Amino acid sequence: MTRTVIESKTKTVTIGFDEPFCVIGERINPTGRKKLAAELELDDYSTVERDAIEQAACGAMVLDINSGAVFSNKMAQDPRYADNNFVEPMLMPELIKRVQAVVDTPLCIDSSVPAALEAGLAAAQGRPLLNSVTGEEERLELVLPLVKKYNVPVVAISNDDTGISEDPDVRFEVAKKIVQRAADFGIPAHDIVVDPLVMPIGAMASAGQQVFALVRRLRDELGVNTTCGASNVSFGLPERHGINAAFLPMAIAAGMTSAIMNPIRVQEMEAIRAANLLMNHDPNGTAWIGFARVLELMKDGTSFAEASKAAASAGRRGREGGGRRRRG
Amino acid sequence: MTRTVIESKTKTVTIGFDEPFCVIGERINPTGRKKLAAELELDDYSTVERDAIEQAACGAMVLDINSGAVFSNKMAQDPRYADNNFVEPMLMPELIKRVQAVVDTPLCIDSSVPAALEAGLAAAQGRPLLNSVTGEEERLELVLPLVKKYNVPVVAISNDDTGISEDPDVRFEVAKKIVQRAADFGIPAHDIVVDPLVMPIGAMASAGQQVFALVRRLRDELGVNTTCGASNVSFGLPERHGINAAFLPMAIAAGMTSAIMNPIRVQEMEAIRAANLLMNHDPNGTAWIGFARVLELMKDGTSFAEASKAAASAGRRGREGGGRRRRG
Repeated sequence: MTRTVIESKTKTVTIGFDEPFCVIGERINPTGRKKLAAELELDDYSTVERDAIEQAACGAMVLDINSGAVFSNKMAQDPRYADNNFVEPMLMPELIKRVQAVVDTPLCIDSSVPAALEAGLAAAQGRPLLNSVTGEEERLELVLPLVKKYNVPVVAISNDDTGISEDPDVRFEVAKKIVQRAADFGIPAHDIVVDPLVMPIGAMASAGQQVFALVRRLRDELGVNTTCGASNVSFGLPERHGINAAFLPMAIAAGMTSAIMNPIRVQEMEAIRAANLLMNHDPNGTAWIGFARVLELMKDGTSFAEASKAAASAGRRGREGGGRRRRG
Repeated sequence: MTRTVIESKTKTVTIGFDEPFCVIGERINPTGRKKLAAELELDDYSTVERDAIEQAACGAMVLDINSGAVFSNKMAQDPRYADNNFVEPMLMPELIKRVQAVVDTPLCIDSSVPAALEAGLAAAQGRPLLNSVTGEEERLELVLPLVKKYNVPVVAISNDDTGISEDPDVRFEVAKKIVQRAADFGIPAHDIVVDPLVMPIGAMASAGQQVFALVRRLRDELGVNTTCGASNVSFGLPERHGINAAFLPMAIAAGMTSAIMNPIRVQEMEAIRAANLLMNHDPNGTAWIGFARVLELMKDGTSFAEASKAAASAGRRGREGGGRRRRG
């Protein structure tokens, strides 16, 4: 049975065919978030800390930490701040320390800079997920040794030196090549989480069917777990959350076992919780019934994050209260 | 290719593997709607007419007409009014005439009383869907001759004289038997729409997985279209619409081609519209983009039915306006 184990200092998350879908929170990412990048340049980690706490409260089981920033105000003093290769290896461990100080959620270390990945691996407690390797020769040679050295699982994105193929068979072959190359390094298939690459349905009408078929093949033929950037499927279309919220259950039914996504969005999280129940990955419907309480709390306009926190703390009080009654 | 064709006087709906999911509106059904049953007893068809118009506006492609009523106030005068076998053959054609007078949506004639089915077949214009036959010997002998005589498609529910099996393999065999018996009558498999029976997930944790696997087998091995009473899956659980809205895309991904359901519920209809898009059954995303306009209109509190009607009439005006411009 394919089980990808990700750990923080105190928590273990398993990605697997018989496990609840693993939601990897994507929000800690300065790429395309100018305000966040500016805060980080000023050593202000308040948004990062809030995003960590909120995503965990909303149900993220792993937090992606992306260090993709350059520091534009510092460039004048030192032009190296314009270079990701200079900034990210410093920034990544700092992000990880700040997040680890406020939540005990396992982490996913996300950078295109190998030195940032290694600095992150040194800073992270437990067994983080590494994000990512591709089928590109240079990436394989740089990243797989880190995966082996630190004994961590890794996200494998199915593009190679020829780019991203529109042909799903080619993307399958790229994934297969990565799994084989990893095996050469002594890395088992259960530590490879393949991202088959989800194309926008607005640009490629067969994108959904393609990815459902690919996920099934990756599971049946390679025995690997899978992930994706879920919101990509709805790029460019109106009412994106509705598309994402249908895509996720369909992908889960096809065998997808995780996604990198925004867990602050209730519509998508509701779809995933319901899909877990329908896949028989929610014993006695406990998680669904807990989630229904969050939805109930939202009916007066409370945000999903606030309602999630309130429901979690009420649950803790209930359990503690029960404990006291049993002792009394 | 399996194509189940259902027609009204002017409209054709095709249920098929490469067609948008066929939503069969379930609301015209006095069973469990005491107020509606009382209205019908007084020859008041206003609710039926409103339900027909609203369901069609919200996206029902076929309207189920269930005549399951007895007339309790008339029982004192004539005890036969306590008997479905007396009431339904009179009520069914009246319901059908009233609905046909206000919408041109194809119909699904739904009764457990064979004489009501036949009266409905005589009253309905076009090619209605008959609902239903089961694997019970008596039903097979009563209903299949009607299906043959009127050359209509039929819903086949996979229970038999032993009841509803919890074993999906048994339910598959019942469906297979019905398809074979229909063939003996000269009825082709493409005119059988199998309902594999969806169990409540709260009572049977494997119910979702079961039905997804069954739908796939029914499609691959028997080549038949499928339907279900979609909301049954969430029976007894909180926040049922969220469960239904994940179940439908998952069932669609598995190959389910229709459902008998409440089309007035926006959450389920949004999930189906998005699933159509993701299955590449919505050329150019036209239906999704139209639906997004309905969601936009609902943001000020307008009901789904009202917003659907408004969007449809704006669409008509737009098309007519375009026509005038082209002529001008």
